[in-house]
Parts: sequence; structure tokens; C-alpha cells
Amino acid sequence: MVSEMVELRGHIIDSLILPKVLDEILTRGGNFKIDEVKIGQNRIDQSYARVEVSAPTTESLDELILRIRQHGAEIVERKDVQLGAAPADGVFPADFYVTTNQQTFVRVAGKEIEVQEPMMDSAIAVDRKQRSARTVRFYDVRKGDEIVIGHHGVRVVPLQRATSHTDIFQFLNTNVSAERPKLAVIKELSREFERARRDGGKILVVAGPALVHTGAGEHLERIIEHGYVDRLFAGNGLAVYDVETALFGTSLGVSLERGALADHGHENHLRAVNVIREANGIAAAVTKGILTRGIMHACVRHNVDIVLSGSIRDDGPIPGVTTDAIEAQKIMREKIRGVTLVVMLGSMLHSIAVANMLSAAVKIVVVDIDPSAVSKIASQQSFQSIGLVTDVEPFLRELAACLTDQAADGTSG
Amino acid sequence: MVSEMVELRGHIIDSLILPKVLDEILTRGGNFKIDEVKIGQNRIDQSYARVEVSAPTTESLDELILRIRQHGAEIVERKDVQLGAAPADGVFPADFYVTTNQQTFVRVAGKEIEVQEPMMDSAIAVDRKQRSARTVRFYDVRKGDEIVIGHHGVRVVPLQRATSHTDIFQFLNTNVSAERPKLAVIKELSREFERARRDGGKILVVAGPALVHTGAGEHLERIIEHGYVDRLFAGNGLAVYDVETALFGTSLGVSLERGALADHGHENHLRAVNVIREANGIAAAVTKGILTRGIMHACVRHNVDIVLSGSIRDDGPIPGVTTDAIEAQKIMREKIRGVTLVVMLGSMLHSIAVANMLSAAVKIVVVDIDPSAVSKIASQQSFQSIGLVTDVEPFLRELAACLTDQAADGTSG
Amino acid sequence: MVSEMVELRGHIIDSLILPKVLDEILTRGGNFKIDEVKIGQNRIDQSYARVEVSAPTTESLDELILRIRQHGAEIVERKDVQLGAAPADGVFPADFYVTTNQQTFVRVAGKEIEVQEPMMDSAIAVDRKQRSARTVRFYDVRKGDEIVIGHHGVRVVPLQRATSHTDIFQFLNTNVSAERPKLAVIKELSREFERARRDGGKILVVAGPALVHTGAGEHLERIIEHGYVDRLFAGNGLAVYDVETALFGTSLGVSLERGALADHGHENHLRAVNVIREANGIAAAVTKGILTRGIMHACVRHNVDIVLSGSIRDDGPIPGVTTDAIEAQKIMREKIRGVTLVVMLGSMLHSIAVANMLSAAVKIVVVDIDPSAVSKIASQQSFQSIGLVTDVEPFLRELAACLTDQAADGTSG
Amino acid sequence: MVSEMVELRGHIIDSLILPKVLDEILTRGGNFKIDEVKIGQNRIDQSYARVEVSAPTTESLDELILRIRQHGAEIVERKDVQLGAAPADGVFPADFYVTTNQQTFVRVAGKEIEVQEPMMDSAIAVDRKQRSARTVRFYDVRKGDEIVIGHHGVRVVPLQRATSHTDIFQFLNTNVSAERPKLAVIKELSREFERARRDGGKILVVAGPALVHTGAGEHLERIIEHGYVDRLFAGNGLAVYDVETALFGTSLGVSLERGALADHGHENHLRAVNVIREANGIAAAVTKGILTRGIMHACVRHNVDIVLSGSIRDDGPIPGVTTDAIEAQKIMREKIRGVTLVVMLGSMLHSIAVANMLSAAVKIVVVDIDPSAVSKIASQQSFQSIGLVTDVEPFLRELAACLTDQAADGTSG
Repeated sequence: MVSEMVELRGHIIDSLILPKVLDEILTRGGNFKIDEVKIGQNRIDQSYARVEVSAPTTESLDELILRIRQHGAEIVERKDVQLGAAPADGVFPADFYVTTNQQTFVRVAGKEIEVQEPMMDSAIAVDRKQRSARTVRFYDVRKGDEIVIGHHGVRVVPLQRATSHTDIFQFLNTNVSAERPKLAVIKELSREFERARRDGGKILVVAGPALVHTGAGEHLERIIEHGYVDRLFAGNGLAVYDVETALFGTSLGVSLERGALADHGHENHLRAVNVIREANGIAAAVTKGILTRGIMHACVRHNVDIVLSGSIRDDGPIPGVTTDAIEAQKIMREKIRGVTLVVMLGSMLHSIAVANMLSAAVKIVVVDIDPSAVSKIASQQSFQSIGLVTDVEPFLRELAACLTDQAADGTSG
Repeated sequence: MVSEMVELRGHIIDSLILPKVLDEILTRGGNFKIDEVKIGQNRIDQSYARVEVSAPTTESLDELILRIRQHGAEIVERKDVQLGAAPADGVFPADFYVTTNQQTFVRVAGKEIEVQEPMMDSAIAVDRKQRSARTVRFYDVRKGDEIVIGHHGVRVVPLQRATSHTDIFQFLNTNVSAERPKLAVIKELSREFERARRDGGKILVVAGPALVHTGAGEHLERIIEHGYVDRLFAGNGLAVYDVETALFGTSLGVSLERGALADHGHENHLRAVNVIREANGIAAAVTKGILTRGIMHACVRHNVDIVLSGSIRDDGPIPGVTTDAIEAQKIMREKIRGVTLVVMLGSMLHSIAVANMLSAAVKIVVVDIDPSAVSKIASQQSFQSIGLVTDVEPFLRELAACLTDQAADGTSG
Repeated sequence: MVSEMVELRGHIIDSLILPKVLDEILTRGGNFKIDEVKIGQNRIDQSYARVEVSAPTTESLDELILRIRQHGAEIVERKDVQLGAAPADGVFPADFYVTTNQQTFVRVAGKEIEVQEPMMDSAIAVDRKQRSARTVRFYDVRKGDEIVIGHHGVRVVPLQRATSHTDIFQFLNTNVSAERPKLAVIKELSREFERARRDGGKILVVAGPALVHTGAGEHLERIIEHGYVDRLFAGNGLAVYDVETALFGTSLGVSLERGALADHGHENHLRAVNVIREANGIAAAVTKGILTRGIMHACVRHNVDIVLSGSIRDDGPIPGVTTDAIEAQKIMREKIRGVTLVVMLGSMLHSIAVANMLSAAVKIVVVDIDPSAVSKIASQQSFQSIGLVTDVEPFLRELAACLTDQAADGTSG
Repeated sequence: MVSEMVELRGHIIDSLILPKVLDEILTRGGNFKIDEVKIGQNRIDQSYARVEVSAPTTESLDELILRIRQHGAEIVERKDVQLGAAPADGVFPADFYVTTNQQTFVRVAGKEIEVQEPMMDSAIAVDRKQRSARTVRFYDVRKGDEIVIGHHGVRVVPLQRATSHTDIFQFLNTNVSAERPKLAVIKELSREFERARRDGGKILVVAGPALVHTGAGEHLERIIEHGYVDRLFAGNGLAVYDVETALFGTSLGVSLERGALADHGHENHLRAVNVIREANGIAAAVTKGILTRGIMHACVRHNVDIVLSGSIRDDGPIPGVTTDAIEAQKIMREKIRGVTLVVMLGSMLHSIAVANMLSAAVKIVVVDIDPSAVSKIASQQSFQSIGLVTDVEPFLRELAACLTDQAADGTSG
């Protein structure tokens, strides 16, 4: 039987960290002795626990410690991280440490360095000269880069529940099923938009083509005009259908005004692509007066950063779409910097891609009429995501109304 | 090879009746010779076809004729129906004719009688003295009743497509998926409500508990107040949650104002049941001033006929709920008389039960966030149903707004 | 500030009970001081905590205590329950205590009595003479019955996680999505069937009509023949389609052998109903040699208790179906006694009705191809339910194969 | 009022072509006079109709003719196609003709030329020197290419229903819902595999990662080993999880043997990517003995053409994945040549991309547990697609068993 002493700090009781750690130990055949527990008297106070963890073999203890460190346990006797050189471009050393999306520190030469841009499913590259560390994906790594291997010297600080209860991500941290009321939640969300803007956080909208098909485009335009969108990530499809709507009044051939298929409707999206290709892109089409309304037009006019990425089912694409998936990932990662609130609307592919790049500190709202899509995306963020199973059009209509009211209040105030 | 001459009349080309009939003949190994075709010159004109149908044996010919008569083919040489006596209460003679929901005539003593209250999956009882015929279900039939057997002498007149295109059931006879715009359709539906009321048709709303859970109750109240609902079919659940909302502001414990579970919330629906049981029912609770708002209250105030039926998952039930399924079917069938428009909102069980009792002439709108539910229910009515895959709350909110506008216009006009 | 001392016992750490309690206190504006914590050294050991809970007012303290008692907290200074007389048949006193499905004790005249047949959403009736207590629903209560009001003197003992990990309900206590492997789980479940049978527990199958439509009937027959089913709850539909299959080889008109609609197929279920009505029920049809195969036949032959309940969408019904919903609830509740394992197959209505009557100690397996149905039903049982999102037919085919192997092993052993 | 004479030929009655054409005319405010109808006497005979179409203006007549030509109507007085030069690389002339996926002919200098590789949503490029025509997408077109504009001189020959009924795509041309029996259909499909192979058609499997997650990989391996797969289209995900399964026994961390999350499981897919990147690709990993089982291994061993395309949610990717969406489209289009049967398994993105490139003559089977995915994909092919709503794993298990039996029969025969 070998043992090691670990410490836990923070809201370890009400964030369920202590029990999860003890449970993990028992589940994995280990054992524990609680050396000391100081439980915070009230919500703001931090708690502390010192626990001696034991396991039958050094290996199983190591394994165990690795697991509970994901929950924030720290080894009292700390070691430096081990580093291994990347054997080739795009390849990690065999035993590379796999990141979570939580705040993470690595101990290098006895000092802790915070890992930049925490993101899950990555490795950690350390620059000993610069005394810096950052998450890296396969496409980032170059032969010889120093990559963290094993788990010693890595400390994870899980996001802890906020002490205030004013924010909807605290009291409604869950999915709102199709059978629940949504108006109250939408109102609360509009306050989150305000809060994010006030605090200087960037707001990112990730949107799928259903947004245009359902006629919700004009609502998003309004939200953009009120200055509540900083970045928009979408696919070629959303841009094409938005242009189709602007030019022909249809989305995938369906008239948004009449709700029925228009004459020649199914050809319109191809003609829209052709127009934009001929004009040399969306910004050019706006400048030339070809594109005079719609989401894309609003983004150009209000300096919203657009990232359009391609997929194998695209028609076109229109100029400006990044068709290479890895290039698109790099651009999205770049544009995620500074984002504190993400709203994902009817787009499983893009939403999962984005969720995959976010730090646990970013707040996520997922809206989709398909409950499986909502739970799939929302499940990645434990304390900070809300999923709404509802129709995108009425959701955005209501949100735009709330934000318009807010903007009006702000002006008058 | 035996053969028989059949005739087809009506909009047999554009309603796809002729090709379906010819196809049926070929599919079943028969053959045909088209004796005469007169195709209407334009949309209003009826067409006519006389076709000689042949098949290898008398039996297979008989079988074939039976199938194509479902599409409206008539045998030129007509026979009387055959009748058999019901062997016991609740039991049909073995070879009973199974009805469709189309208009149907039976030939008795050389004269055709129209079958009353066409409804699918029933038998036809003939009263030779009264020269009348009506559909009967198992629970209707009494020992000795004369029931149609075989298919000779039965003529089905399938609903034909209307010549006008003003009505949405003609140009949008389909399901509107989650990815389609719905505002235009809702506006058009509000005109159907007006049309039904103007023509003296009754409007039936079939509603499930999600209507209350999502906070749509107040919209339905408004529609009731404007006089657009004549009958309401629902289960114990809808009534209970509506009362819960009226008394406690929650639906299944969730506060409609805050969107989150209220303290003690999960107990509220039981306490609501208890209150109504103690008050001796909903109408009494309204009279006594216990129930002062909500859907049930509006129905009592505006003389909407309420039919509440029970199910095995009910809590309670509250007084006035018909807990016996067959009794409930009888009551619903009674209350369906005169109904020309049915709106089904988030209630698969009740909607299928009702759809099962409707004549093909009744128009149906199905609204549900679950696409499977919509297509299941809407599939029963070929020319006259529209299915909307959307959230019930914003649908009703928009519909109530349209109907309120209409009501205002009507008053001022 | 008022305060009260409470105690927690059991696996309060790894079952997350302690942190939930502390969290509840803080969330509701209360405060706590941990007086003593003894944490079990290993998994089998029980833990103990004594906590002083305080709140601003007596009322809010009372409210708080009520909440944390749902998690098993006991007041150190114990009181007797308060009892109120039912004001009328079918009506509870206004402030009646609403049960959970957990093991519950009430303190009467200083002694604790266990409440019989724990079941959620009920009241507790106490018979002081008999010194007994039982859960009662609205339909059970008679004027003058003594019903628990408030929450003093009620002690709830939440089901705690078992110490052994051999059982699948412990290590896989969750829903298995469509995207997960299921073969391993099915194998493990077959061992649960064996275990239930060995321990003298009854096995209940709750089944919907899709079971027959998908061709899974023969698999269930096989499982019945091997003696793994004690009770079957279903609706009229399942019985009708099973008879239709036995008599005509179709289910709702679709040939199970060819997968396509049979000639006249859509009439077959009505003819099946007629045959059984004429024969005076299923058992009689078996005796008379009319019904010679199928699920119903197997149940009659192997003495499986069948409970068939009616719904408003039923055709027929066949004799033996309980059409009154409340009568059906009473019968089901009766037949649930002794059941330790429930398998729910493609039947949301019946499954929710049954789940609603079960004690937390009963194990539940839910199988449905619709993920919403699975999560809705499975969510009611925290530590003891497994949901599988899959097609019912291959699930039962595999389960039948496993159980057949087991039965063979048992015989040879 | 202007008019034009059109002709219809083929199975215009039972394929519903004539009525659709007449209906289209009336719907669009035109009128018709049927000049001559010769209806085929039996199923094999072709029918013929000559119809005079009239409309108020030349424009509306033109519009009308365009629509009905999609149904195969030909103008009796034929004209040559009009050609316009592409104004720039990747841009079509403004009024370019948009293709369907049906067989299409263009009339150039008085002679009809068949358009190569019919595919929907494309333009037609004509090479007058070579007397050839082919479908082109945006990425294909070069400045100056001659592209068909307007619709004169284009003749579409819609796929007509086969006269034989031996093939399942004829008698079961629809989606098989979750509530239908599937065993019979799977058996019939296995015969389609045999037929395709016998006739020299290539079989393409399009597969999503759920195939591996559900444990169906080994079934696909078996089908590959029996020589029933010529090409496999998938994403990076499927390949990664397949390698993960081969190396670690898990898929996205879940043990396929135990059905539960393995220790460190969530890291395995990243480690799998790393191994393949280090090995320089899948084929190399097979050669080096690193990859010794799984789908990828079977493809390499049995010379199945693999096309792997990237998406923005990919980890990695592994070498060999085409990350550029347009490049991937070109490769897929190349590899679709000669394919006569496509099986799409749990992959909406890839399936829609592929369906979008197929001629109407190719047979499609879509299998997914999500009914929306099935209907979305299957809706693109009218006479030749079957959709199965079921779990991919048991579907493939059964199919593999049928194909194994067939292979055994073939060997012995």
C-alpha cells in the first residue's frame, strides 16, 4: 500500500468536489483518510480538506492521483512537470498530457505557470525560456516543441460556482425542454447580453441555416443593429440563404412571406451563389449596392467579424468561405479570444466545433428544436450552459424585442 | 379472365384518382381497357372515365373492385348491399364492411342511401324501415342489427380537391417542418378560423398539458374570449395544470414567471386537484370564486363545451373527467358533430383519438414540437391537414395576436 | 436567527447527500455550522454528520428543514407527526404531506412506523389503533381518515448506493444513447433477470404496440416460455395487434414476414377484435383453439398475470380490458406488489403510469427508440434505472438469446 | 392567349406523370386541351399523350413549359439550346439552366446529346466541337465555357417505374418507420447487394462515427471481407474511432466490450490520432503491423477505395483525410462513377453531400435512428430510396449475417 497526501481548496462542498474526489478514490479501489476538513461557514467562504490517498501499487496510485487532479486535488509534495520533445511536426510525444477546458497551471523549475487559452483535448507546450505554456493541437506542434507528458506538476482549478445568484447560468444551469416555459428565460438572457457588453466581453453568435429558413434572419439583423453581436460563425449555407432571401425573398426556394415554395424557388440559392461569386464576395456586393439587406449586410455595416467555414455538402461556395477545415479551426480559435458569451442557434456541426475550443469560463446558450442536439452540445460545459429546446424563429423574435427595449432604456437612461 | 365495367367521375385527373386506380389494377395483376375518357377542359370541369377491369378469377376481380372502389370507382351494373345480422351485442357479422372516413353511399332496394357520420374503422348499420344508414363501432352494435357485409352496393365518394385556391389547406397541404417559416401560415390559419365561424362551423381545440407547461394558456384564454373556440377536448392533466397555474402560478411546479422550479412546486398539482375535488368541480370552483383565471375559467365563462377524459397516468382526477375510455369516446363523438375545423396542440393521444372519428371533410391543423407526432396525426387526412413542427407557445401567441386583430377589424367594420 | 440541530447518517459523502444538504441550506438563505463529521474510512462504512442549521425566521427554518429532510436529514429533537381528518371522500386535508417514493417513517406517539408501499405523489394515512401507515391516493381516501399534515415527525431514508459493484444499475446508472454500444448492457441485463428470479422477486414487463409492429412478439414469447416474466402490463392495442398477428400474420396491416402492407391489411385489427369479442375474451379464445400463438397465448399458457388497460384511442376494446383509468390504476398497483425488476418497452403512457407507482427500490429498464421517451421515464428513478435508446425488436431478440442460453446453462447445471 | 403543343411518353399514367403535368398547368393559371391519349394496355406498354398548353402571355407560357418539362414533357416543335459564355472562372452566365438528377438531353445543331453524369443543382457545359455535354458545378467552370441558358432544347427523361416487381425499391419505396418490422427488408436488401455485384455495379458505403460507437464496426468488417463493399466514404471521425477501437478497445472512450467509460477513455481517440500521424497514415500503419484489425484495416486488406473528408469539428486529422471541402467533393464525385447501390449509415452530413451528387438511377438505402435524418436524405430520390429508422448496430449485424449466408451459398453453388 502506497499513499500520497492531497489538498482540496475552494467551494469543494457545494460544488460537489470533495465527494466526487472521495467517490473516485473508492470506486477505483483506493482508500482515503481525511486528515483535516475546514468547511466554510457560509457561501462565500472557501473550504479546505487534506486527504491521504492510498492504493495497492505505485502505478494504481499514480492513476488515481491523475483522476482526482481533474477535480482540482493538488499533491502536497509538488513536482515539476515532465517534458518530452515532439518527435515530428504534428505529432506529440507518446505519453502527452491531455487537457481539460479548465484553468490549468504547470510547475516548471519550481514555479507555477498558467496555461494560456485553456481548451480541452489538447496538449500543453511549454516554452522554458519565455516561462510560458499554452494549449496546442496537432496542427500547432512542431518537431522539438516541449510537450507536457504524464501528469505530475499539472494543477487544474475547476470552475467553481459563483457566489452570486443573480445570473441565470447559476440558477438555471440546465436544459429547458420543449415542455417548459421559455419567455422568462429569454428575458433573463437579454440581461446577460447587456452584462457581457458592459463588462467588455465579446458576444459570439454561431448560427445554422435554419435561422434563415424559418424567417429569423430579420430578428438577428435587429440584434446586430443594436450592437449585441461582435462575431458571427456560420457555414457557407447560412450566408447563401441569407443572400437568397435578400435577392429573391426565398430561403431554399420557400417564400418567407407566403410560407410556400416559390416558382423556380429551388434554383434561387444557386443563382444567389452565382451573383456573389460574380461580385467577388459579400463585402464587395454590399459596396456595389447589390446586397442591401439581410444578416450578411448588417454584419458588413456594423463591423461584425464573420467567419464562414465550408463543408462537403456546400453549393458554391461563395468567396470568403474557408473551405479547409483545419484553416477554419485556426481562424475560429483566433476569433474566440475575448468572447465571454456564445449563443448557438440551430447548428450542431459548428456548435460542437466551437464548444470544443472554449474555456470552461465562457457562457453558452444553445437553442435548437431537436432535443438531442441541445443535450449533445450543452453537455460539454458543466456550470455555464443553458439549452433551450425550441423553434429558433420565435426565440430570436422575442430576444430581439427584449434587446430593443433594453437598448431604448439605455438611451433614455 | 373475367371483367367488369367501372366508372370514375370528378376531378379524377388532378386529384390523381384515375392513375391511382389504373395503378392499383396493374399492381394487383389485373388488366384494364380504357373505354372512354373525357377530361375536363379546365379546373372546374369534372372528368369522366369508363374502364373495363379484368382479372384471372372472379375472386381476384372482386378483390380488385373492392380496392378501386375505395378510390371512388363505381360498378356500372350496380347491386344492392348485402346485410348480415350482428350475432351478439358488440359483435359484427364475420365479413363486415370496414369503412373509410370518406362520404359513402349504400344501395338498399335499388336506392342509394348516404351513410351518416362517416368515420373510418367502423361498420355500417342499415335500418331498412327508416331507409337510413350510419357508421357503428363495436360499442354501438346490438344483437340483430343489420350490418353491411362484403362490398357490393357500397359507393365511396372521395373528397376532391377544391376548385378555389384561396384556402391554405389546398396550397399548403403538408407538414411544415421545423426548418420552414411559420408566420405566413399562422396568419392564413387565422383566416380559416374566421371563415369557419362565418360559415357556422364549430371549432374544436384538442390540447395537451404542454400547452400549460410552456405558458401558452393565456394565449388560448384570449382566443376563447374572442369567441373562436366552441369545444375543447383535453385530458385531466391539462385541466389540473391550468388550475395549478391559476392558483399557484406554476405548472408541474415550474414557475411560469421565472421559468424555474418553485419551492414546493412539485406538490402544487396535487394541491390543485385537492382544491377542485373539495369544491366539487371546475364550474363550481368558478362560481364560488375559487378559480378566477385560466383556460378552464375562460371556458366556463364563454360557454365552451369541455370534454375531459382520463388516462392511467392521471393524478386525481378532478370531478368532471370521464375516466372510462369508451364513455369518453362516445361523448367526444357526440361533440364532434358540426365541427369543421380542428386544431390539435401538443397532444398525441387525444389527437389520434379524435382524428380517428373525423370525416374526411373536416380540416385539421396539428401543432407539435415533435416531428413524429405531427406526421403520425396529420397522415390520416389526405387533402385537408396541415402539420406544423414548432413550439406550441409561440404558435399560440402569434395566432392569438392575429385573431385579436381580426376581431378588432370585425368590430370596427 | 433561529436554529435546529440535524443529523445525517449513511453513505452521505459518496451518495452526495451531505453536500446537497449544505448546498440546500445556503441556497435558501440559511446558514450552518458543522458540529461533527465522521467520514467512513472505506466504501462500506457509514458516515455521520451533525449540523446546526439556522435561518432568519421560524417559518423559513421550518421550510428549510422540510427540504433537507427529503435528503434524509433528521431533526435531533424529534416530534410526532400531525394528523388531520379527510374532510370528504376523495379529499385530503389542506396541508397534507406529499410523499416521495423513498422509504419513509412516521413518528406516532413517540414511536416510528414505516409507511407501507412507498410511492410518490401520495398522502400518508395513519391508523393509530393498528399502529400502521400507508400511502394513499385520492381514490383511496375516505372521509375521516387520518392523514399526515405538515412534515414534522416524517423521516425519509433515501436509497443509498449499494456497496457492491457487481450490479449494472450501480455502474451504468444512466441512459445509453443511440450512439453507444448495447450488446454488453443487454448481456448484463439478462443476469439481472436471473438474479431477480433467484431472489424471488417478480419481473414485470410493460409493453407498447410497437413491440408487435416491429416483429418482436416472438422474442417476448420465448422469454415468457423460459419463465422470465411474471406480469405483463399493456394496453388494448398490444393485445389486439398480437391477436392480429396470430390470426392474420400482420400487425396494423403490415405483414411481419414481408415488411409491406398486406391486402386488406388495415382491416385485420378490427377483424381480430371482432373474433376475440365473439369468443368472449383471450383466455376463452385460447381454450377454444382459436388463438394458438403469440404473446397473449404464451401468457395464458404460462400463467403470466396480464393487466390490459384501455385508452381513448382504442378500437374495440377486447373483453378483459379495464377501460376505466382509475380502476386500471388500482389493479396495476395491486399487481406491482413483489415486483423488483420492471422492463418498459416502447410504451410511454403505461411506463409513466407504472413508474409513478413504484418504490425507489425497484429496478427499471426503459427501452425506446425515442430518446425523449427514455429520458422522461428514466428520470424518475435516480439510482436504479437504465434507459436504452434503441429499436425494441433487436433489443428483445438479443435479450431472448441471452436468456435462452442462461436457461440452458441452468438446466444443465 | 398563346399556346404550344407538348408530348408525353412512357409510363405517364402509373408514374403519375400525366396528372402531375395537367395539375401543374391548371395550378399555374394555364389551360390545356388533350389532343390525343393512348394509354398502354398493361404495365409494360408505354402510354402517349399530346396536350395543347395555353397561357395568357408568352412569358407565363414559357414559365409553364419550363415547369412541365421537369416532368418529361417535350415541346413538339423543338429548338436548339441557347448557350452563354461563362463570364469568369467559377461563375455561370446569369440565366444558366439548373439541372435535376434525371437523365437529360440537350439539342445542339438539331441533334440531341445526352448530358454526362446527371446530377442536380448544376449547370450544363456544352462542347460543340466534341459534341458532348456534361454537368458542371461552380468549381468546374472556366471563363468562356459554353453553358446552357434558359430551357429551350433541354429534354428531361424522368426515371420511370420499373416493370418488374422483384426489386424491393419498387414495392417498398418509402421510409420504414421505427414502428415497422425490418427483418424482411434487411433480407431483401442483402439480395440487392448480390444483384449489384452480379451486374458489375459498384457498392458504396457512406458511414458515420455512430457505426463504430455502437459496436457495428465488426459487422462492416465482415461485409467487406465477403467482398460486398467497393467504396467507403466517411469522415475523419469514423477512421479515428475505428483505430481507437483497434488499439484500445474503446470508441470515444467507451469500452465496446463492457458498454461503460473506460479509465482514461476520453483520451484514447487523441492517442489514436497521434499513433496514425506518427505512422504516416492508415495504410502505413497496416503495413507496419500497428493496425491489425477494424474497418480501416479491412479496407486496406480488401482494396476498398476509402474517401475520408474533414470537418471543422475534427480532432487531428489523421493523414489521408481531405480537409478541403471542395477538394473532397471532387474526389467523391470521381469515386461515385460506376456506383449503383449506396448504403448510408448514420451520417447526415456525408449522406446529404453524396445524395446531392447522385443520378436518379442510383439506388439508395438510408439507415439512421433519427427519423428526421432518414426522411431528409431519402426525400431526394423519388423512385429509388428506402429509409430505415433503426439502430445501426443490429441492422448491420443482421445484414452481415444474411450476406455471410449468401456468400456461403454462392461458394457451394
